[in-house]
Amino acid sequence: MPLFTENASSWRDLRALRSFAPPLPRLSPKFAPPDDGIQRHEVIIVGAGPAGLMLHLLLARYGLTDQSLLCIDSKPGTLKSGQADGIQPRTLEVFKTLGISDEIENEACQMWEFAFWNTSDDPAKVIERRSCVPEVIPPARFKYEATIHQGRVERIIEADLLRYSQRGVLRKTKLISMWIDESVDPEFPVFAEIEVDGELRVVRTKHLVGADGAHSVVRRAVGLELEGQSLDYIWGVVDAVVDTNFPDIRRRCAIHSSEGSVMVIPRERINTGEYITRLYVNIPEIVEPASLDADADLKKEAKGRRSRVTLEGILKQAEDVFKPYYIRPKRDDAVDWWAAYQIGQRVCPEFIVKDHTGVPRVFIVGDACHTHSPKAGQGMNVSMMDSYNLAWKLAYHINGLTPRSVDMGGSIPMLDTYHSERHANAQRLIDFDRKFSSGFSDRVGTAKSRSGMSHSEFVDLFNTGCGFTSGCGVEYDENILVDRSSAELISGKDFLSGILRPGRRLLNVKLKRFADGWHRDIQDDLASTGRFRLLLLLTNDLLDIAGVSATSVNSTATLVQQFPTSLLEQIIVYPRLPGEITWENIPRCVKDHSEMTFYSGCELEDAYRIYGVDPARGAQVVVRPDGYVGLVTELSDIARVDAYLSRIITRGA
Amino acid sequence: MPLFTENASSWRDLRALRSFAPPLPRLSPKFAPPDDGIQRHEVIIVGAGPAGLMLHLLLARYGLTDQSLLCIDSKPGTLKSGQADGIQPRTLEVFKTLGISDEIENEACQMWEFAFWNTSDDPAKVIERRSCVPEVIPPARFKYEATIHQGRVERIIEADLLRYSQRGVLRKTKLISMWIDESVDPEFPVFAEIEVDGELRVVRTKHLVGADGAHSVVRRAVGLELEGQSLDYIWGVVDAVVDTNFPDIRRRCAIHSSEGSVMVIPRERINTGEYITRLYVNIPEIVEPASLDADADLKKEAKGRRSRVTLEGILKQAEDVFKPYYIRPKRDDAVDWWAAYQIGQRVCPEFIVKDHTGVPRVFIVGDACHTHSPKAGQGMNVSMMDSYNLAWKLAYHINGLTPRSVDMGGSIPMLDTYHSERHANAQRLIDFDRKFSSGFSDRVGTAKSRSGMSHSEFVDLFNTGCGFTSGCGVEYDENILVDRSSAELISGKDFLSGILRPGRRLLNVKLKRFADGWHRDIQDDLASTGRFRLLLLLTNDLLDIAGVSATSVNSTATLVQQFPTSLLEQIIVYPRLPGEITWENIPRCVKDHSEMTFYSGCELEDAYRIYGVDPARGAQVVVRPDGYVGLVTELSDIARVDAYLSRIITRGA
Repeated sequence: MPLFTENASSWRDLRALRSFAPPLPRLSPKFAPPDDGIQRHEVIIVGAGPAGLMLHLLLARYGLTDQSLLCIDSKPGTLKSGQADGIQPRTLEVFKTLGISDEIENEACQMWEFAFWNTSDDPAKVIERRSCVPEVIPPARFKYEATIHQGRVERIIEADLLRYSQRGVLRKTKLISMWIDESVDPEFPVFAEIEVDGELRVVRTKHLVGADGAHSVVRRAVGLELEGQSLDYIWGVVDAVVDTNFPDIRRRCAIHSSEGSVMVIPRERINTGEYITRLYVNIPEIVEPASLDADADLKKEAKGRRSRVTLEGILKQAEDVFKPYYIRPKRDDAVDWWAAYQIGQRVCPEFIVKDHTGVPRVFIVGDACHTHSPKAGQGMNVSMMDSYNLAWKLAYHINGLTPRSVDMGGSIPMLDTYHSERHANAQRLIDFDRKFSSGFSDRVGTAKSRSGMSHSEFVDLFNTGCGFTSGCGVEYDENILVDRSSAELISGKDFLSGILRPGRRLLNVKLKRFADGWHRDIQDDLASTGRFRLLLLLTNDLLDIAGVSATSVNSTATLVQQFPTSLLEQIIVYPRLPGEITWENIPRCVKDHSEMTFYSGCELEDAYRIYGVDPARGAQVVVRPDGYVGLVTELSDIARVDAYLSRIITRGA
Repeated sequence: MPLFTENASSWRDLRALRSFAPPLPRLSPKFAPPDDGIQRHEVIIVGAGPAGLMLHLLLARYGLTDQSLLCIDSKPGTLKSGQADGIQPRTLEVFKTLGISDEIENEACQMWEFAFWNTSDDPAKVIERRSCVPEVIPPARFKYEATIHQGRVERIIEADLLRYSQRGVLRKTKLISMWIDESVDPEFPVFAEIEVDGELRVVRTKHLVGADGAHSVVRRAVGLELEGQSLDYIWGVVDAVVDTNFPDIRRRCAIHSSEGSVMVIPRERINTGEYITRLYVNIPEIVEPASLDADADLKKEAKGRRSRVTLEGILKQAEDVFKPYYIRPKRDDAVDWWAAYQIGQRVCPEFIVKDHTGVPRVFIVGDACHTHSPKAGQGMNVSMMDSYNLAWKLAYHINGLTPRSVDMGGSIPMLDTYHSERHANAQRLIDFDRKFSSGFSDRVGTAKSRSGMSHSEFVDLFNTGCGFTSGCGVEYDENILVDRSSAELISGKDFLSGILRPGRRLLNVKLKRFADGWHRDIQDDLASTGRFRLLLLLTNDLLDIAGVSATSVNSTATLVQQFPTSLLEQIIVYPRLPGEITWENIPRCVKDHSEMTFYSGCELEDAYRIYGVDPARGAQVVVRPDGYVGLVTELSDIARVDAYLSRIITRGA
């Protein structure tokens, strides 16, 4: 019989809620637009697909209120026409840092292997499996690519968004036009004419983001165009529950037979207990690739050819490629969705439009600034990662956390990197996709091959491209946020395997926490809360109170306090040490400031080896809010860390 | 520029939703009570604490409708007075099979280590750490104990419940009295008088479950009492953000100093970014343990003594035990909750009350049928596991899926095992808790020890008890659901480490799926959907089409079809084979029925070694809906599997 006498504080009830991300500090004045009947915002996002939703979620989590931030979408509900289905390992890592990866981890299809099927030398076999490789080759926290309906990804993001934004997306609201005019209301120079429930209204904002897809109204309004190759081959795509005796139907497959090409994408289990399969089917007899500069006539002609593609035609073509195996929808109503498409590789030359004082006012993200074929599973991922790159930079600018450059014509250097980093990335994506997609459409390894690409060349292309297609090998060039001046400190060049490299994301490692023995992932300390992290890889003389480690942790602790509160977080890792470590025999500031982010870097995984750091020398790493390494330098070189941070972060008041 | 022509089926929109568990088949008539103005149900649950909520969730997921199932609770909202905070590894495994473990995995405190502190021989040290052991010693899917506020666990269960039940818990509704009367309405012989919003109402039900806590109205109404030892030592317990220089504050600690005993339970991080600590503090000077049979006077006296415990007193006592380290609440308002309690070890002699025809009508679960000290972290776990044990049995009975025994006086043998399994478990829990709790309250290893228990004896007690306290070592005795007649087949006796044992839960192993190379946990195929699983560990002659494996998979596939549709699921595992396996060179029924549950048992972990199965001989295992092994037998012994299942499952129509 429990006999209790108890007393609880009122805030104990709060303990039943889920955790919330802490907002960023704000040094700029609180958003308080004049009360003159004019609707004003700090940011308007146009479009609530994956890119727009991701941006909305991040800005809301960083602390932008519903008054400051508006996201509009012309459709009445969550997107029904989305066709993407792949979530890359890197995107999953990011979702994990937002606490929204679980449903995908649990319920998406996990693609672990990629099988390559080609024409067999044995005529009785017709086609045969030539090789089977891991889907994700570089080390990553998640060793698979996940596939799941795009609508579900959007629903997951929106559910989390509604914890931070009461209004959420303003739907049935359409952008009609927009323009920049600094003369009327200099603080709010972007004008957007929107249609809400049939009524037209002009609202003003400091910034506007076009996340409104390939046919972006925003992009056109600012006079930009997608440039590049126009139309690809025609493809049919079908999502269905299939009945087949093809043995690899649950693996990602590239099938090149003499009859044509099919890509198999296994998909998630649905509530009937059945599994969906997506087939990308090349429709070779209908169309030849269009010329490099398609004009309106060509587009029209292509549309006409596309309209001749039918579900029956796609299925018939798939049947032919799969022979001698059979494949068909399991029932008449087993087809979820099908489409015919042509996609060229195109990119917008500018992702940012500035006002005349150099302040970026309009941003373009996602499909609105780059399009490419879906076969490398890039679309939804690259789009969301555009927003992931932009969100913290924009929030820093709005909250007064990053300085305006006097010597760069008044621009905001941190914000400028959105274009330089993501445009270069889009260009690389498109170059890869052009090769991969045409290699795929071609009858690789058969007599009918146009490119003459062999099977092994195609597999090599996949393997080398995997760092890129997994999202784990993305590398940004040097800029104000990517400082490679101390590169000689790090030994090794295999950056894809984790060797520290400014401009690449910090690979996850497993660390044992000193305070409690908890086995943790370092990426769990890189929550997407907009904070910079100073990762100190200490030296093996840590127990020497006059050693470089002891000096450096003290100096870093002092440095952190010179920046706005909470903006810099420390993670401290130590190598194998000659003696037993206790809280008493190391600098006191470690426990004071980093008690719960102080780790053994050798007991679970060897963080020093993985990162290419000599335990006798140590290293200091600045990790950006998006998980990318910004700077690697000598452990003791606080001056360089200070210089890096001071260029991009406003000192505290 | 993507150019799409697309066509979607209307049900594609459903793909954006989370998955739902499939309901159990129902052979009994659909619930359709007479339309005579009398409120009738199939099950009424009284109390919506962890045990009641868990039962409600499970029955709703099994398919009981809001009309059939009612859960009432007298409080207006989710529990505010809950004091449990520990989630055992086994409970996490169960949560995982329900898809509700993520928030706890991500946000609870994970206790990985248990440190033992005792009086030091060095007077300057006063106390010192004697040893530090893993918190969870036996193999388990989760290698830690999680701690988190009970209200949060309830909120998580309730959120999932509301996906399956529109009404959810009927709150502000109190059970006044209840009785069984078979004469009025034989199908609905249980009468419950309830007070809803101040109005009294009598409702009828087939079954009623008392999940109404230690002071259970249900238990009293059916004339049962908790029996056993009465009152334990007096303890104070405090949840607070603490300021301390005690080095192990983030580990679970047992501190035995000459000043007394304290247990430290590290708790979750809260939204301020701080971490909560729970302290259990023995208050030795106030009370001696009461006699074995406390009467009302003793209780009153105890209450009086307890009322003399103050927060200041608890904190002062903790300070003394922690010396020479300091410990105090970090701020004046840093105490979340505190209480003084005495808990004896008591158990109810019957967990089931039957009507005169032998049908179980009233069940008692959770604190209503057993109470014990909270220090072994058992309370919330054992209570929820009572419900986990009862739910599927009750659902099978209601849905007509389990036979009534003619030769056992008309009873329902499957249902009877709820009492036999959980009562024995409660008794073992209480025996362990009595030892652990008194060992803990005693000044172990000091001159003042009453029991003379040494430090190493206390550590041993923890270590041997860990199978039990982790929930992973629970073992049910033989009964109709636990058949140990083929025990000689299995080699090894270390059941805690995974050796197959009817009556114990199936240990998780990592398997590689043949169809897609996915690395999966076998427990992910043991979703808590109420299904039995036939786990076939095939032999290494699988490629021999006339071998024992080929014969057995065919016979099992045939057997499965003789039971109600979907009630038996197959999981097939193969060992290292002499040749390459393909879908073509193994029995066709493997792909037809088990394409997505067919695994290599040797490529990731060695399932055969872990389970104690000889790959030359194989084994067939029946796993119960609660993840416990029911039967292990020869792979070819279909007759025994048939006999086991036929005793407990009604054959299909």
